[in-house]
Amino acid sequence: MRILKETTPVSDGFRMPAEYERHQGCIMIFPERPDSWQYGGYAARKAFVQIAEAIAESEQVTVCAGGARYDNARALLPPHIRVVEMSSNDAWARDYAPTFLKNDKGVVRGVDWGFNAWGGLCDGLYFPWDKDNQMARKLCDLLGFDVYDMRDFILEGGSIHVDGEGTCMVTECCLLSKGRNPGLSREEIEVRLRSCLNVSVVLWLPWGIHNDETNGHVDNICAFTRPGEVVLAWTEDREDVQYPLSKACLDYLEQAVDARGRKLKVHRLPLPKPVTVTEEECRGLDACWDEPARRPGERLAASYVNFYIANGSIVMPGFGDPADAEAKAVLEGLFPDRKVIQIYTRDILIGGGNIHCITQQIPAAD
Amino acid sequence: MRILKETTPVSDGFRMPAEYERHQGCIMIFPERPDSWQYGGYAARKAFVQIAEAIAESEQVTVCAGGARYDNARALLPPHIRVVEMSSNDAWARDYAPTFLKNDKGVVRGVDWGFNAWGGLCDGLYFPWDKDNQMARKLCDLLGFDVYDMRDFILEGGSIHVDGEGTCMVTECCLLSKGRNPGLSREEIEVRLRSCLNVSVVLWLPWGIHNDETNGHVDNICAFTRPGEVVLAWTEDREDVQYPLSKACLDYLEQAVDARGRKLKVHRLPLPKPVTVTEEECRGLDACWDEPARRPGERLAASYVNFYIANGSIVMPGFGDPADAEAKAVLEGLFPDRKVIQIYTRDILIGGGNIHCITQQIPAAD
Repeated sequence: MRILKETTPVSDGFRMPAEYERHQGCIMIFPERPDSWQYGGYAARKAFVQIAEAIAESEQVTVCAGGARYDNARALLPPHIRVVEMSSNDAWARDYAPTFLKNDKGVVRGVDWGFNAWGGLCDGLYFPWDKDNQMARKLCDLLGFDVYDMRDFILEGGSIHVDGEGTCMVTECCLLSKGRNPGLSREEIEVRLRSCLNVSVVLWLPWGIHNDETNGHVDNICAFTRPGEVVLAWTEDREDVQYPLSKACLDYLEQAVDARGRKLKVHRLPLPKPVTVTEEECRGLDACWDEPARRPGERLAASYVNFYIANGSIVMPGFGDPADAEAKAVLEGLFPDRKVIQIYTRDILIGGGNIHCITQQIPAAD
Repeated sequence: MRILKETTPVSDGFRMPAEYERHQGCIMIFPERPDSWQYGGYAARKAFVQIAEAIAESEQVTVCAGGARYDNARALLPPHIRVVEMSSNDAWARDYAPTFLKNDKGVVRGVDWGFNAWGGLCDGLYFPWDKDNQMARKLCDLLGFDVYDMRDFILEGGSIHVDGEGTCMVTECCLLSKGRNPGLSREEIEVRLRSCLNVSVVLWLPWGIHNDETNGHVDNICAFTRPGEVVLAWTEDREDVQYPLSKACLDYLEQAVDARGRKLKVHRLPLPKPVTVTEEECRGLDACWDEPARRPGERLAASYVNFYIANGSIVMPGFGDPADAEAKAVLEGLFPDRKVIQIYTRDILIGGGNIHCITQQIPAAD
């Protein structure tokens, strides 16, 4: 694995493919952190295993497990899913596995962004985050890919989406937050995104999902479904605190133009009714630092947009909500060539994210 | 990775290739154990890195490093050598990385033998050995190979050599030792070797190298150099305690017949003058359990036979002994198509082995 510091993806002819382009596989991390996964993580593990199995129907899945958990991960996962030993601080592959790039010869490389647990000492979610921050390089080394050293720029994979045709989508609330890159202006951040992802247009949605502790990752509120089309988390309840956030995003998207000069087609994906954490669930979470990890009644950032696009399927969350079926039908309409698999993920949501947050696709080498 | 329990390599048509057949790569483990590697292991690491670099001239090298050592291993090794995170109790890839097999379609599989630190609670060298014993499966999983579960049979890779044409070579002193498989007779052990390695003849050398704490692994005293030919560690000093051991092996080999019905051609490889550990070296070793790891004046099992056959080279030990050059010349004569690279390995020898002990070849997939 060469660590590339002198050149950029753009100068070397690499770009980040869209998630709906072909994958060679997917990376996940086995959950174990007791202040993220309630009651020893048994329920979360079950959901992780179901998600890995669903994705593995159409692409190779590699699950990273800390040394002490390797045996258990190996025992819980079926033989066709690969388990490798790798330390981490938690289980968010989207945010600290590499962002993978590809050139027109089909060569794959990774980007190693700086990671500071969603805000570092300013408003980050745990400390330390050293092992998470090592994963991008370890994974590139494991997979035999060269890696761009972008550790001086703080970015999580969940805070970006690309259409594969020159457009990137982010949120202002996250990328401009004080805990990321306070020394960089919006324009300077755009320059980084352009040179690292090889995009010419950056769309800045104003908001994410209410109370999303990542400062509002784009991958929880909006996703490309194909070039020129996006799906937006939506509520018709004008009294809900999420309404003005989604409405502001809709207004922005309806006037936006992508890198190919297209107006975007915006599909609305219903949100479930507000999901709050129970007292019983809070009792199953260890304290984080010297504070409770969650407080009873706290609203969780539930959204069906947090799905993963596998080669042959869409793996999407379910919350036991009446909107589950409606959301599934919307995605079935938007992805007619893929099977939509819905998995009950309340136990991942309590940890702070959902299916897209715990997965990272590796583009196919041609 | 499928774990195969119902079938055997023989029944599935797999055999262990000889080390001189083509490799796809080599596995090593980064040293860190303070009762094996003196003074923090800095000198041993240097030798390990030199060996990895020599092998990597002609095949891919993967070095496993414990989580806490990963960064340092990555920094010390060049970019073309892959480093993966993997826990171990020590650094003897020969003995607990899988024994790799191949079928006539070029498919590779591994064998996961039981490992008990060279004798378990009887006369093993450290406790516990749990992480070592996990490595064979972890490596097969990492590499995408199915693995035969042979954990109920204690065997180290250094205690077997094969010629790739149906012959296996072992030592009685090791395989019949009380700390290995005391419940199995010599005939029952042979049955296991035949079915796991796919050999029809097992040659039982009586002895290994004097004071070799593995109970006398064959890979320190004798090795196949091609079908029908072996190289034997030899001394002309009839007063030396090694003389009767090497002589008994020579007598055995001179009457032996291999699986193809050939009489073996035995080449003698000179031994260096006796190597003993110094007081200064002992002071740099942590205690092992409640005893000193080594005592001043203790004789080490130095032997030039402990070399590695890479695709393009022979990587062999040197001890700063007058016999270094002579031994190198012998191997140059026996391997005319390979470059012989001699590396000063006293710092590995103090740990208890040498170049062959810290490497494991992966046969090429066709």
